Amino acid sequence: MTTTEQPLLLLVLDLIGTFAFGLNGALTAVRAVRLDIVGVVTLGVITALGGGIIRDVLIGDVPPAAFRDWRYLALAIGGGLLAFALSQRLDRLELPINVLDAVGLSVFAVIGASKAVAFGLGVGPAIILGAVTGVGGGTIRDTLVRQVPSVLHSNLYAIPALTAAALTVLAVQVGIYGLPAALGAAAICFAIRMLGVILGLNAPRPPGVPEDR
Amino acid sequence: MTTTEQPLLLLVLDLIGTFAFGLNGALTAVRAVRLDIVGVVTLGVITALGGGIIRDVLIGDVPPAAFRDWRYLALAIGGGLLAFALSQRLDRLELPINVLDAVGLSVFAVIGASKAVAFGLGVGPAIILGAVTGVGGGTIRDTLVRQVPSVLHSNLYAIPALTAAALTVLAVQVGIYGLPAALGAAAICFAIRMLGVILGLNAPRPPGVPEDR
Amino acid sequence: MTTTEQPLLLLVLDLIGTFAFGLNGALTAVRAVRLDIVGVVTLGVITALGGGIIRDVLIGDVPPAAFRDWRYLALAIGGGLLAFALSQRLDRLELPINVLDAVGLSVFAVIGASKAVAFGLGVGPAIILGAVTGVGGGTIRDTLVRQVPSVLHSNLYAIPALTAAALTVLAVQVGIYGLPAALGAAAICFAIRMLGVILGLNAPRPPGVPEDR
Repeated sequence: MTTTEQPLLLLVLDLIGTFAFGLNGALTAVRAVRLDIVGVVTLGVITALGGGIIRDVLIGDVPPAAFRDWRYLALAIGGGLLAFALSQRLDRLELPINVLDAVGLSVFAVIGASKAVAFGLGVGPAIILGAVTGVGGGTIRDTLVRQVPSVLHSNLYAIPALTAAALTVLAVQVGIYGLPAALGAAAICFAIRMLGVILGLNAPRPPGVPEDR
Repeated sequence: MTTTEQPLLLLVLDLIGTFAFGLNGALTAVRAVRLDIVGVVTLGVITALGGGIIRDVLIGDVPPAAFRDWRYLALAIGGGLLAFALSQRLDRLELPINVLDAVGLSVFAVIGASKAVAFGLGVGPAIILGAVTGVGGGTIRDTLVRQVPSVLHSNLYAIPALTAAALTVLAVQVGIYGLPAALGAAAICFAIRMLGVILGLNAPRPPGVPEDR
Repeated sequence: MTTTEQPLLLLVLDLIGTFAFGLNGALTAVRAVRLDIVGVVTLGVITALGGGIIRDVLIGDVPPAAFRDWRYLALAIGGGLLAFALSQRLDRLELPINVLDAVGLSVFAVIGASKAVAFGLGVGPAIILGAVTGVGGGTIRDTLVRQVPSVLHSNLYAIPALTAAALTVLAVQVGIYGLPAALGAAAICFAIRMLGVILGLNAPRPPGVPEDR
């Protein structure tokens, strides 16, 4: 079992995404429940690393990559600590945080899907594991602080991740996966996600369910 | 690591159970919280595949079997989509859905226990993993939609699963495990579960705890 | 993959901690939600074994050690059954139960960290996995019964576990890990934890968050 090598640019984006997820995850947790510093940082780390850890456990790449490269853990903790220190002021930074979060979602989905393919998974599971890499950490966080995971109901979170993962797997299948394809898939995910944030878009709801239940 | 081979009849029942769990899991989720289509299908898939995935991770059979045979994923997604499409009318189908769900519980517990034994686990862990295969997916779903998992309190759900798993392990131990023993264990689980559904039976509660707390 | 050998005294403390976690975990569950006997015992077992199982899955030691030595499962179930039988009287035993629980926390953190190091993990991940061994089971239990995990907000629970894990990893690094070092690290964890229980101490909260939110 070896880590799949990623081009430098993807690695940098991956690290930025890890920091953004740690920051945003801890901030979301602070808003939802009363926590001490350990709780805030813990939830930041879980948000940043949880998705990749689930993916690595499911493909059999243990210990997870997040435990083998200290930079991921350091950036996740750093993001959580920053959220703790600045929790009162971060409201004003909502847009930049949302942008960084969308970067993380996009890069995680692409890297997660390409890693799943590299470990021999089929098309369907690879797409799912790509999306899980992107949304898994936030889902664990939401569950721990007793929120219904935002991926299940909020404006376009899972769909861009699934799209990026599907495009990645497609690119691998037709033999054109590389930095341009990865960045293209991530950019499409990023665009859909930001559109959802800005317009407040949602995926279709079951018929007959009232909007304001 | 190879998949344990199952007789054709068990495989068919396993696939039926996967579809029923996907359908029932998604339906339960729709009733509990407001979800979009991705959320509904996701919860159906988690219900259908979650128990087997936990078992496979714990016995070291990764990637999980549900990711190596596309039929499981397809049936789980199909069940979830059907629940989304018909969510208003499925109330009238409560009995058939409960029956299919009990089929899934029974078959999952038997197959889960026999697979755990095949991977070298002892009697106690194999029984537990059989039950986890049956109830694990629904437990994750309930936690994600903020319900106390029904396996912890509702009318006879864990007990039939544990019974089927125990009978399966016993049959392996005395050397009579095969299709008849598997179907027998599953039938007993099915009968106890349906009895619980029809009569509203519950397992004993702690002494002194008021019934209507 | 072999189990890391532990000195006899540590093994005994580990088994005592398993029983205490099973007892305390089941008792906490009984207080939080209405459960049947299967639910109570299940939550006791999850509390007792959950942390170690997460650690073993993440370091790749599967099936988890708790499934390979029947004494762990037996003691966890025994603790859960005792909690079920005595759930009305256990309130009077709060101090002894808290003491046993602190023993479990301390020993689990030390053993978890030393095992993670033995499986080749780095300093940061080994400390985290030590703490996860100590607090993971209770966190799963709290999530299943819809409580915010006490590790995230309550009086000094994660900090003593992290301290014990860090001291253990340090002792391994400087080559003095053995029974005395393990007991020393566990004793420090135990002392901090009991101080937190007795004085009701908490870790720092984010600035500006009202105390009684």
